[in-house]
Amino acid sequence: MIHEPIQIITTGGTIDKIYFDAKSTYQVGCPNIKRVLEELPVTVDYQITPLLQKDSLEITDADRQVLADTIKATPGQRIIVTHGTDTMVESAMALADIQDKTIVFTGALEPAMFKTSDAIFNIGCAIAAVQALPAGIYITMNGRIFPYDNVVKDVENSRFVPRSELS
Amino acid sequence: MIHEPIQIITTGGTIDKIYFDAKSTYQVGCPNIKRVLEELPVTVDYQITPLLQKDSLEITDADRQVLADTIKATPGQRIIVTHGTDTMVESAMALADIQDKTIVFTGALEPAMFKTSDAIFNIGCAIAAVQALPAGIYITMNGRIFPYDNVVKDVENSRFVPRSELS
Amino acid sequence: MIHEPIQIITTGGTIDKIYFDAKSTYQVGCPNIKRVLEELPVTVDYQITPLLQKDSLEITDADRQVLADTIKATPGQRIIVTHGTDTMVESAMALADIQDKTIVFTGALEPAMFKTSDAIFNIGCAIAAVQALPAGIYITMNGRIFPYDNVVKDVENSRFVPRSELS
Amino acid sequence: MIHEPIQIITTGGTIDKIYFDAKSTYQVGCPNIKRVLEELPVTVDYQITPLLQKDSLEITDADRQVLADTIKATPGQRIIVTHGTDTMVESAMALADIQDKTIVFTGALEPAMFKTSDAIFNIGCAIAAVQALPAGIYITMNGRIFPYDNVVKDVENSRFVPRSELS
Repeated sequence: MIHEPIQIITTGGTIDKIYFDAKSTYQVGCPNIKRVLEELPVTVDYQITPLLQKDSLEITDADRQVLADTIKATPGQRIIVTHGTDTMVESAMALADIQDKTIVFTGALEPAMFKTSDAIFNIGCAIAAVQALPAGIYITMNGRIFPYDNVVKDVENSRFVPRSELS
Repeated sequence: MIHEPIQIITTGGTIDKIYFDAKSTYQVGCPNIKRVLEELPVTVDYQITPLLQKDSLEITDADRQVLADTIKATPGQRIIVTHGTDTMVESAMALADIQDKTIVFTGALEPAMFKTSDAIFNIGCAIAAVQALPAGIYITMNGRIFPYDNVVKDVENSRFVPRSELS
Repeated sequence: MIHEPIQIITTGGTIDKIYFDAKSTYQVGCPNIKRVLEELPVTVDYQITPLLQKDSLEITDADRQVLADTIKATPGQRIIVTHGTDTMVESAMALADIQDKTIVFTGALEPAMFKTSDAIFNIGCAIAAVQALPAGIYITMNGRIFPYDNVVKDVENSRFVPRSELS
Repeated sequence: MIHEPIQIITTGGTIDKIYFDAKSTYQVGCPNIKRVLEELPVTVDYQITPLLQKDSLEITDADRQVLADTIKATPGQRIIVTHGTDTMVESAMALADIQDKTIVFTGALEPAMFKTSDAIFNIGCAIAAVQALPAGIYITMNGRIFPYDNVVKDVENSRFVPRSELS
């Protein structure tokens, strides 16, 4: 439906977490969305910009300003942002004054390297959503599409819900 | 964004192909979209109707009539059809007189049981597309969304393309 | 424990079956044991000889003679043969006069490309068995190690059993 | 070849590490060897005893005494111990006075839940090794079989090697 490439901006988060045996720790690695899309028979055009490589709890207001500036500077109208889930909503809110682009946030509740990860499914949701939706800022998680201003992470149940559904 | 359950109708195809060692053959098995969605942290409502269990080359005009009747009979406005890729476009065309629902076809180029299958990604695309798109009939494959009347399977390259792009 | 490389001879079979969407058929492809071992942190030395690329029902007496000649010609004492399961026992029997080497057959009941395949597990069994066992001809399937002259494929239940256990 | 069940004792380690999104931490979960063996077409008899659920850096001398006592108390002659890799050798050494059983340690360099984990391969190696080897204490990692008294983890390169090979 669209002919301009989708702009994909990566910021880190659980989707990109990998395991370093040498240190027995988990760290944020390279953008998994790149590997996922390259290994699939995807023919849609896209460009990936690795912007940050952080757990989302470590993302600062300055980082969010850089994210906003990066999106404003891109000529593309269709933007996917991969992001850690804990502060995904905060980062989406920080873009509220960008009104002429379709911006879709996604991430994963389990690292993409896990057999049971939701990463590939969520990336599929984001790729379709960013092509189908009108200008606006959205979060796609759990198979749902949320406007950025009516969604919250239900940490206890590890899912995203509309604000009104959070018990 | 929507509150009615997504209606998922399965018809077989590569996405559902499994391997029977006892016979050393491959056959169309149970709907893999059911297993995929159950194993993911999906919170969107959906209902699955297993309608056919066929290689798409074996789907007949009578089958397509049953598919059309089933979709017309459902009160839901959001319909996903999983289908073999070889005649997916023909089946989409057979629904052309249904104009008040969003109908999204998807499938897979490799069986969902394969490690490298595009099934989970395609299902993600379809789940998002069916929620985001206006009424109409679409095919989501290869990360793209096609209107049903401008898409064809490029068999040689094993991908879907707009009619104009088929060499 | 051993310092000579393990000699791995591949003959095809279910373990190497892949899916060709363009033709909607399954065929025997390249040796999956190569890919599996390369992707794992394996430090044991091995050499892979792709000998045949056949469904085991198509393996002939002439093929078995080539297999025997190949094994006799190798200076190595530790041999793994990957093979289709339907005639694995027949091929093992055709090597009965080779008495100074440890020869371990294995394969898979599901293609290695399947998420649920037994291929990686079976390859692990064979790699360890060929290092640990004395000279002789063995089949490792289903987590068991069978002497070649007391094993049969129970086709109905899709497993290998000692001859005495076949009902 | 053997008819008594293989005794599998689990102690935790990377092989059993899982990810808790709610806390964004990784912890040692239930024994993955149970799930792995149940999902494969394995017909060898085995019994699993979940003894500890610890990162191997946390395993104490008291834990090792419990492990030794547990193995001595079992009537079985074939024992697999799944264990974290960092102190696997130390735990194997603590069993040195058990001389009438075949004891095989294994684990994983990446959690079994990872797509690229060596867990299934290593479990295959251990299942075969424990059936094929004479009484003694062994470590199977990286596709190799090591006597317990000539092996060390090369932490820098994340692999097991004979003591003489450690640079």
